[in-house]
Amino acid sequence: MAKYCFGIDIGGTTVKLGLFTDLGEVLDKWEIVTRTEDCGKNILPDIAESINDKIAEKGINKSDVVGVGLTAPGPVDDAGVVHKAVNLGWGVFNISETLSELLGVPVKSGNDANVAALGEMWKGGGRGYSTMVVVTLGTGVGGGIIVNGKILAGATGAAGEIGHIHIEDDEKEACGCGNYGCLEEYASATGIVRLANRRLEKDSTPSMLRDDEISAKAVFDAVKAGDTVAIEIAKEFGEYLGKGLAAIAGVINPEAFVVGGGVSKAGEILFDFVKEPYAKYVFHGSKDVKFALAELGNDAGIFGSAKLILDEVNA
Amino acid sequence: MAKYCFGIDIGGTTVKLGLFTDLGEVLDKWEIVTRTEDCGKNILPDIAESINDKIAEKGINKSDVVGVGLTAPGPVDDAGVVHKAVNLGWGVFNISETLSELLGVPVKSGNDANVAALGEMWKGGGRGYSTMVVVTLGTGVGGGIIVNGKILAGATGAAGEIGHIHIEDDEKEACGCGNYGCLEEYASATGIVRLANRRLEKDSTPSMLRDDEISAKAVFDAVKAGDTVAIEIAKEFGEYLGKGLAAIAGVINPEAFVVGGGVSKAGEILFDFVKEPYAKYVFHGSKDVKFALAELGNDAGIFGSAKLILDEVNA
Repeated sequence: MAKYCFGIDIGGTTVKLGLFTDLGEVLDKWEIVTRTEDCGKNILPDIAESINDKIAEKGINKSDVVGVGLTAPGPVDDAGVVHKAVNLGWGVFNISETLSELLGVPVKSGNDANVAALGEMWKGGGRGYSTMVVVTLGTGVGGGIIVNGKILAGATGAAGEIGHIHIEDDEKEACGCGNYGCLEEYASATGIVRLANRRLEKDSTPSMLRDDEISAKAVFDAVKAGDTVAIEIAKEFGEYLGKGLAAIAGVINPEAFVVGGGVSKAGEILFDFVKEPYAKYVFHGSKDVKFALAELGNDAGIFGSAKLILDEVNA
Repeated sequence: MAKYCFGIDIGGTTVKLGLFTDLGEVLDKWEIVTRTEDCGKNILPDIAESINDKIAEKGINKSDVVGVGLTAPGPVDDAGVVHKAVNLGWGVFNISETLSELLGVPVKSGNDANVAALGEMWKGGGRGYSTMVVVTLGTGVGGGIIVNGKILAGATGAAGEIGHIHIEDDEKEACGCGNYGCLEEYASATGIVRLANRRLEKDSTPSMLRDDEISAKAVFDAVKAGDTVAIEIAKEFGEYLGKGLAAIAGVINPEAFVVGGGVSKAGEILFDFVKEPYAKYVFHGSKDVKFALAELGNDAGIFGSAKLILDEVNA
């Protein structure tokens, strides 16, 4: 008899939902709007309703639903208590218990970046690894750490906040976090634009980057076209990211770094710029790490949350 | 009926052994010589003999010995395979299986720095914490990481090699590992001497450090006496160590850092120099970390290995 679970990924504008078999096959994916008004009080009831609708639509017996995995965009402790999720208007309460009471099935919750890392380990770029770090290079730099197949959440849910590792002593511009010289200031999409602008202002060497609006994509497109200024910028990006990943490896000693987020759309060429600085800065015991691209994109959260609840009910 | 276990800590010159009750009370501690000749082939048989002698001496029934915990000064994987321990002359073999066959009781093994961290969590400066980092400031800088009460060993046993996190871009002198600008070059006992010599050579400001041989102890003694040059040196040490610990916290988000090794004999005054730079560099989610001194000294390994086997047999 088939058993089922749901993987739910709550974002600031939409909630992504997935229906899975207990063997990890995805049967359906859909989205609903995240209603953040009134301190987000409708979000979990909306999710419960959508799950119940799907159960009815598919003719599934509710007793065959083993549970629901859930992410939130904020720190979530092991018991399921979210410690503020400002984008949702949420304060501090137990989201696992609340959704479980609404649905009558077990619920297990985690922070979205951490759960996405679990998804990449299970069905994405991290398949085959059990101790790994997912590095998300988007507007900011985020991270999710998996140790022996489990999420490393840390004492207050702030493990894997690798975007704010201090990496440059001479920075004069503040990071969004208020510190100076964070990895995120150089390795995020906006960080690459910062590096590009600084390089272009330095002199007037011709570059195709001078013709258009600068973006991380434009930089790596120019790199692929052989633009020497773009290659300099990519080398600087790689120097910072390689140094940051080397520090992380000195702590965790992972099997692999799995790189996702908008910047990762540049593809494997990213690693050409990261591997050499990484090898220069890392302790020799962690030299043989693998670099892989994330594969699940925006679906990492629903896969990860499905894995989270399956691990919980099968423990 | 009382049950017993042994905690064994193998070093390059002596093996430390401890007899414990299964409730963690230490009943006896002693040492034997580490015979490293002939590729260290006598080490485990010597340990087995010493344990059997102790069992006979105390009139313990061998069936009441639940197991033996064991450390080695090298990477040890979860199965008990040591991957070279050069100080012992050991290559690659399963030390847990070998000792277990000699003794007829379960054996669980781990890397010495990691196991010592487990000991500090159990009975030392880390009591009450379950996610913590032990930082050993000795000749070098070592680390042991505990996550949810368990050792984080990493993919190849190189987790917690925090002494080789890159921390200074402008270093011209190589670290023992071959890299440049490792934390160990500034925060170890020898690193503090390096910082002191560099400061003293810079100008001729009077300092009591000019009178005697420089050591980490002399620097912190001078700090306690109000020596302004020594205070400058301690601030520089604290800046490097605080920056390094902030990077570690950005990855692990521990509850506490427990600081041991020779340098830690300076006492709580160390933290006066570390806390401010730590707060400056760390991500706000990890600001509220605790700093504590290690308490077990050279006994951390036997306590940790006793805990290792007790966790194993009680799992």
